[in-house]
Amino acid sequence: MRPNRLREMWKTGKRANNCWLSIPSAFSAEIMAHQGWDSVTIDMQHAPIDDAAAYAMLVAVSTTDAVPIVRVASNEPGAILRVLDWGAYGVMCPTIETVEACRAFVGAARYAPLGARSISPGRASLYAGPDYVAKANETVLVIAQIETKLGLENVDAIAHTPGLDMLFVGPSDLGHSLGREAKPDQTDPVVVAAIDRILEAAHAAGIYAGIWCASADYGLAMMQKGFDLTTVVYDRGLLGAGAALRGKFA
Amino acid sequence: MRPNRLREMWKTGKRANNCWLSIPSAFSAEIMAHQGWDSVTIDMQHAPIDDAAAYAMLVAVSTTDAVPIVRVASNEPGAILRVLDWGAYGVMCPTIETVEACRAFVGAARYAPLGARSISPGRASLYAGPDYVAKANETVLVIAQIETKLGLENVDAIAHTPGLDMLFVGPSDLGHSLGREAKPDQTDPVVVAAIDRILEAAHAAGIYAGIWCASADYGLAMMQKGFDLTTVVYDRGLLGAGAALRGKFA
Amino acid sequence: MRPNRLREMWKTGKRANNCWLSIPSAFSAEIMAHQGWDSVTIDMQHAPIDDAAAYAMLVAVSTTDAVPIVRVASNEPGAILRVLDWGAYGVMCPTIETVEACRAFVGAARYAPLGARSISPGRASLYAGPDYVAKANETVLVIAQIETKLGLENVDAIAHTPGLDMLFVGPSDLGHSLGREAKPDQTDPVVVAAIDRILEAAHAAGIYAGIWCASADYGLAMMQKGFDLTTVVYDRGLLGAGAALRGKFA
Amino acid sequence: MRPNRLREMWKTGKRANNCWLSIPSAFSAEIMAHQGWDSVTIDMQHAPIDDAAAYAMLVAVSTTDAVPIVRVASNEPGAILRVLDWGAYGVMCPTIETVEACRAFVGAARYAPLGARSISPGRASLYAGPDYVAKANETVLVIAQIETKLGLENVDAIAHTPGLDMLFVGPSDLGHSLGREAKPDQTDPVVVAAIDRILEAAHAAGIYAGIWCASADYGLAMMQKGFDLTTVVYDRGLLGAGAALRGKFA
Amino acid sequence: MRPNRLREMWKTGKRANNCWLSIPSAFSAEIMAHQGWDSVTIDMQHAPIDDAAAYAMLVAVSTTDAVPIVRVASNEPGAILRVLDWGAYGVMCPTIETVEACRAFVGAARYAPLGARSISPGRASLYAGPDYVAKANETVLVIAQIETKLGLENVDAIAHTPGLDMLFVGPSDLGHSLGREAKPDQTDPVVVAAIDRILEAAHAAGIYAGIWCASADYGLAMMQKGFDLTTVVYDRGLLGAGAALRGKFA
Amino acid sequence: MRPNRLREMWKTGKRANNCWLSIPSAFSAEIMAHQGWDSVTIDMQHAPIDDAAAYAMLVAVSTTDAVPIVRVASNEPGAILRVLDWGAYGVMCPTIETVEACRAFVGAARYAPLGARSISPGRASLYAGPDYVAKANETVLVIAQIETKLGLENVDAIAHTPGLDMLFVGPSDLGHSLGREAKPDQTDPVVVAAIDRILEAAHAAGIYAGIWCASADYGLAMMQKGFDLTTVVYDRGLLGAGAALRGKFA
Repeated sequence: MRPNRLREMWKTGKRANNCWLSIPSAFSAEIMAHQGWDSVTIDMQHAPIDDAAAYAMLVAVSTTDAVPIVRVASNEPGAILRVLDWGAYGVMCPTIETVEACRAFVGAARYAPLGARSISPGRASLYAGPDYVAKANETVLVIAQIETKLGLENVDAIAHTPGLDMLFVGPSDLGHSLGREAKPDQTDPVVVAAIDRILEAAHAAGIYAGIWCASADYGLAMMQKGFDLTTVVYDRGLLGAGAALRGKFA
Repeated sequence: MRPNRLREMWKTGKRANNCWLSIPSAFSAEIMAHQGWDSVTIDMQHAPIDDAAAYAMLVAVSTTDAVPIVRVASNEPGAILRVLDWGAYGVMCPTIETVEACRAFVGAARYAPLGARSISPGRASLYAGPDYVAKANETVLVIAQIETKLGLENVDAIAHTPGLDMLFVGPSDLGHSLGREAKPDQTDPVVVAAIDRILEAAHAAGIYAGIWCASADYGLAMMQKGFDLTTVVYDRGLLGAGAALRGKFA
Repeated sequence: MRPNRLREMWKTGKRANNCWLSIPSAFSAEIMAHQGWDSVTIDMQHAPIDDAAAYAMLVAVSTTDAVPIVRVASNEPGAILRVLDWGAYGVMCPTIETVEACRAFVGAARYAPLGARSISPGRASLYAGPDYVAKANETVLVIAQIETKLGLENVDAIAHTPGLDMLFVGPSDLGHSLGREAKPDQTDPVVVAAIDRILEAAHAAGIYAGIWCASADYGLAMMQKGFDLTTVVYDRGLLGAGAALRGKFA
Repeated sequence: MRPNRLREMWKTGKRANNCWLSIPSAFSAEIMAHQGWDSVTIDMQHAPIDDAAAYAMLVAVSTTDAVPIVRVASNEPGAILRVLDWGAYGVMCPTIETVEACRAFVGAARYAPLGARSISPGRASLYAGPDYVAKANETVLVIAQIETKLGLENVDAIAHTPGLDMLFVGPSDLGHSLGREAKPDQTDPVVVAAIDRILEAAHAAGIYAGIWCASADYGLAMMQKGFDLTTVVYDRGLLGAGAALRGKFA
Repeated sequence: MRPNRLREMWKTGKRANNCWLSIPSAFSAEIMAHQGWDSVTIDMQHAPIDDAAAYAMLVAVSTTDAVPIVRVASNEPGAILRVLDWGAYGVMCPTIETVEACRAFVGAARYAPLGARSISPGRASLYAGPDYVAKANETVLVIAQIETKLGLENVDAIAHTPGLDMLFVGPSDLGHSLGREAKPDQTDPVVVAAIDRILEAAHAAGIYAGIWCASADYGLAMMQKGFDLTTVVYDRGLLGAGAALRGKFA
Repeated sequence: MRPNRLREMWKTGKRANNCWLSIPSAFSAEIMAHQGWDSVTIDMQHAPIDDAAAYAMLVAVSTTDAVPIVRVASNEPGAILRVLDWGAYGVMCPTIETVEACRAFVGAARYAPLGARSISPGRASLYAGPDYVAKANETVLVIAQIETKLGLENVDAIAHTPGLDMLFVGPSDLGHSLGREAKPDQTDPVVVAAIDRILEAAHAAGIYAGIWCASADYGLAMMQKGFDLTTVVYDRGLLGAGAALRGKFA
C-alpha cells in the first residue's frame, strides 16, 4: 500500500504543512497540489464542494505527492465511508465534543476490529494498492476537530479514543465558543491557553495535533510550538489578494 | 448585511408570496425569480435537486431580489449548515414532530449562543456582506414544517423553540397523517382545523406561519386568514399545463 | 430498428405535434415527454443546453414514445454527428441559406453513400437496435431551417438536396430578415407569403415541412394549412405563465 | 402503477438476477440494463455515485424493463426518501444490525401507516404512474443488508420488521465480521453457515433473501439454494477483464 | 436594456480594468467579481471552462456590476451565438488575422443588418431586459484579438470592420509570432512597437483597444498609454502566489 | 518536460498498445489506466464524452504512466487546442481526407513555426512541466485518421504533412467507404490491402502508423505487421461481456 507521507514525515521528526481547498474545481486543486504542499484538505463542510467535486479534486491531487485529506460536513457515517473509499488518506470531522461522538466517528472510519467501516474500497485501492483493506487502519488518518468549549472540556477523553490519530484546532469556532472573537491566528490569552491545552492533550495521548492558520508566520510559530500538521495556505485566501490589487485601480 | 426582505415586509404588515422550485436548473430558477416573487424555495427533499444544483440555483436567484429559502431533505446538521453557508436566507426542515427534533434543527442553523452552527460562511458573506456572522441569527429564517399528527400534538411546544422563526404547513402530508386525503388546498374540516391550529400556535408563540398552496385563490385565502408566507406557484405545476395543451391536439 | 414514429404517422396521413425543450434538465424533459407529444426538440442553439444536458435529456425522452429531435447550434459536423450517435432520431440545423450549406449538413448527418457520417453509433444502437447503421439513413430525420431572406431565395434548390427530409420555418428570424417584426405566429402578409412559399417548396420537392408556433391555435391552423410537424408547446413558455399568476399577488 | 417485475417473477416461482452498477455514468448503466438483467442495483455506498449520477442512472435504466434498486450509503432518512422519489423500485440499506435500525430504515421508506415517508413523489410518478402514492407500499422493495456478526445475532427479529421485504447478504463484510476472509463467493463453513442462517430467517419470516456473488457459477448455486435475488454481474468486474488482456501484451 | 457599464465609463473618459477568469467555478468567479472589477473575462479558449461552467460563471458574475465578457475558443458561429444568448455583454475571439475572419466573427455576434445572429435571447433577456433584441447591437461589445504577425499586417482593415468594437492585444502570442519571447508585459521594442501599432489602429478606426497584462504596474502604464480596457488580474495568477508561501516552509 | 513514453518506446524499437475509452467517467478511466496500458485514447467523437468528462478523464489518466490521447469530434481548431491545453499528449482527428484538411489540423495542434496554436497551456504545464511551450512540438503526437476512399487516395501526400506524427486506421469506416463491411479486424482483401497501403505510406514518410483492433489476436498480428500503436481494448467492449454472462441465467 502507498504509504502515508505524513506518517513517514512524523516518524522522522518532521512537521507537515497543509493546503486548504475550498474552490470546487479539479483545476485549482491540481494547481495548488503542484506547489509542493505536504498535504491538502478538501473542505466539504463550509466550502461549496459537493460529492462530485470532492471526488474530482481527490483524483487531481493524486497526480502529486500531496496527502489528500477530506473534511466532511458532519459526523454522518455514509459521508465518512465514501470519502475514504474515494481515496482520502485522512478524514477530518468537525466539532467533536464528546467521547461518544468521537467513537462514532472513528467507528465509521476504521475497519473492524477498530470500527465498522464496510469493506469494498472503490477508488481507494487504485490510489493505494491492492492491499488497501489490510493496511488502511494503520495508514489512513482519522482527525477530530476540537473547536468548542464542550470539546475542550472533554479533550483528554476524546484524545484517548482508540483509533483516533489527531486533534485539529478550529480557532475561529473555538474563539467564538469561548466568548472571544471568531478569527484565526488567535492571540487572545484565553484562546491561546485552550489551543495549548488541545496540543498537550493530543501529545499526552500519543496522537498528533494540527491547527488551521491564516498566515505563514503564525503557521511557522505553531510548528515550533509542536503542532504536527499546520494549515498555512487557503485557496480562497489567495484569491482574496485580488482585492488589494483592485485598490490600485481606484 | 443585506436585509431579509421577508422580515422587512412583515414588519410593515405585508404578507409574502413564495415560489416553489423543483426543477434542478439555474435557468428555470432565474426565469421564475425574475417574475417578481417575494421569495423562492429550492426543494431538496422531494425534488431531484442535489447539492450542485441547489448551489447553482441559489446563485441564479441572487441576481434578483427574491429571498432564497432552501428546504433540506432531512434534519441532518451538515446539510443545514451547508445551504446556509451557500447563502440561503431561510432554511426549512420537513416533518418536525418533537421539541427535541426542533431544537436539533435550530441548533444546526443558528450561531452560538442560539445554536452551534460552525463559523465560516463561504458564499453567504458574498451574498450578504462581510458582517454576516454578526447578523445572521437575526436575519436568516429558520422554518419548521408541521405536517403530521405527532407534530400537531406538539405544535405549541415546537413553536416556542428559541431561535425558530416559522411553522410551515405541509398540507398533503398533514392530511394523510390525519387519515384524510393527501392533497394541497385542503377543504376537509379536520385538516382545515389542524391548519388553523398551526397558524394560531405560531402567532401565539410570536413567530410566523406559512403554508404550501396549489392555486392562487387558495393562496390568497390563506393570506387573508393570516399566513405570513404562502407558496402560490410551483415550477413543475406550470409545466403541467402542457398536458391541457396536449389535449387540443388529440 | 425502432421505427421513427413521425414517419409512421406521416405515412398514414397524420400530422405531428412537437414540444420544444429549452430548460437543461432531464427532469423537466421527462415531465414534458410524458405529456404525450409526438416529438420533442432539444434546442442546443438558443437554450443553455450543453452536451451533457442534451445527452441526459435524450435519455429521459427515451423513457417515452416521443421522437427525440435535437437542434444543433450551427452547421458544425462534429456536433451533428454526436447528437445522432447519442440517439437523436432527428437533427435540425438552423439558418440553412444555400445548397452548399445544406449539402454539408446532410453530409454530416447521413452515412455513405448519402453522406460521410462516421460509423460507430454509441448510444444510438441501444435506443434503436443493433441494425442501426443499416437503417439509420431511412429512419433519422434531417431537417433544415429556412429563416432568412437568402434561405428563402434558395428554398427550392435547398429542398431538393438529396438526403434532406424537412424544411422547418423559424418565423422570428424570418420576419426579422424580411424587415418585418421578429415574432412567432406571424400574420404579416409578407411573412405569411414566405411561410407559404417554404411549405410549397418542401412539398414540391417531396419532403416534409415544419414550423415553430407559440400558441395552440396558430399551431392547429398550420397543421390545417399542411405543415407536417408543428411545434406547439415550449417549456419556457409554460413557466412564463407564472408572471400572470404573480400579478394576482400585486 | 407499473408493477414491480421482481415481485411478479417471484409470484410465479422464478428467481431473479441482478446487475451491480458502480460506474457513475448513465451510458454504462444503459449498456448494462440493455443486457436483459431482471434488476440492477445502483450502489451509492462504495461506488463514487453521487446524487446526480444516481438520478441519471435511474433514468437510463428506465429505458429498459430492469427493475431499478438503489443502495444508499447509510441509514439516513433523507437519502432513502430521495432515491425512492427519483423512481427506485427498491432501496437497500447497508449493515442493518438491530431491530431499531431496521424500523428506522423501513419508516423512512414506507408511507403511513407502515412508515413516515413524506408524500410528493417527484420523478417516481412519471416512472410508475399517477397512482404511485396509493400503491408504493405494496410495490417498492425495502431491503436490509445483513453483513455483520451483530446483524446475524438479530436476524430473526430484523426479518420480522413490518414492511421489510428482503434480507440481502453482503458476504465480504460478513466474512470479515466473523473473523474470516473478506471476500465474495464464500466457501468457508462458518460464513456459509451464516449465509444459510440469513436465508432461512428471511423465508421463515415470509420475506425474500438476496446475496451478492462474484461469479455466475456461485450465483447459480445460490439461486438453487433458494435465494430470490442474486447479484451475478458487476460493471467494474467486467472492466477488470482488461487486466488479463493486458497480460497478452507483456 | 441594462446598459453596458464599460461603454458608459468610456463615454465619460474613464478607462476600465478587467479580471481574467480561468478556474471553472461559479464560486471563484463570484469571489473575484465581488472585488469590484469593472469587467471580467471568462476564458473558454485556454482555460478548462466548458459550456456549463461558462454559463454558471456568467450567472455568478451577474450578481455584481462587473460587465461579463467571454472569450470563445475559436471563430465558430455556434459558440459565439451561445455565449451571447447566455448573457455575455462582450464576446472576444482569439487570433483574428484577416478581414474575412473578422467579418465572419462580427456576423455571428450581431443581429441583422450588422450580422446574422439568430434571434431568441435565452438568458440574455433576463440579464438585460425585455428590449434586448432591439438594443443588443449597440450594447454588446465585439472584440477581436490581434496577436499574430498576420493580424498585425491587416490591423487597419480589421479595425474598420463594421460592427467591431475593440482590438485586444494578446502579448504572448504576439511576441512569439514576431519571433520574440512569448510573455506578457512586453518590453521588447519590436513587440512594444506592434502593441502601439494596434492601439493606434483601433483608435484611428474609432474603436476601442484592450490588452492583457500580468501586473498592476504594467496595466497602469497601459491605461496611461491609452488602452481602454486592461486586464490586470488573473485568478490562476493569484493562486500562483501559493508557491512563494510554500517556499517559507522548505 | 515529461517525456512522451510512446516516443521513448518507439525509439527503442518497441510497439505500443492502446486502450480506448468511451465511458464518460473518471472512475472507469482510472480503472483502465491502472491496468498498465501504454496509452489510452479518450474518444470525443463517437462516445458521449463531453468537454468536462474528457478533462476529468485526462486528470484520472494522469495518475498513471499511460500516455493520454484524445480523439476530437471534428477538425475544429478550438476543440484541438483545448484538449492539448488540458494535457493530452496526443490528439487524433477523424476522417482526414485531404492535404488541406491535414494542414489545418496540424496547424491547430502545433505552435509556430509548425502551426498557429495559441500559447497559454493551462493544465498542460502542470502535467508536463514548466518548459511545455518550448518542447510541446517535439513531444505531443498529432495523429490523422485515414478511414475513407478519398483519404486513401491522398494518403502519401497527407503522410508528408510537416508536423504530422501518425496515420491511424479506422477499419470500420474504411471498409464501409470501400464498399465492404463496416467492421473492425478486417480480413477482406480489399480492405486489408488498403490498411497495408496506409501502413506503408506512414513509414515511407517517416511517421508512425496505428490501427483500431477489436481483439487481442488481431492486435498482436497488427503489431507484428509493423503498426506502432495498436488499440487492443475498449471499455464498452469489456462491458459487452456481460451479455454472455446474462445468457447463463436464461
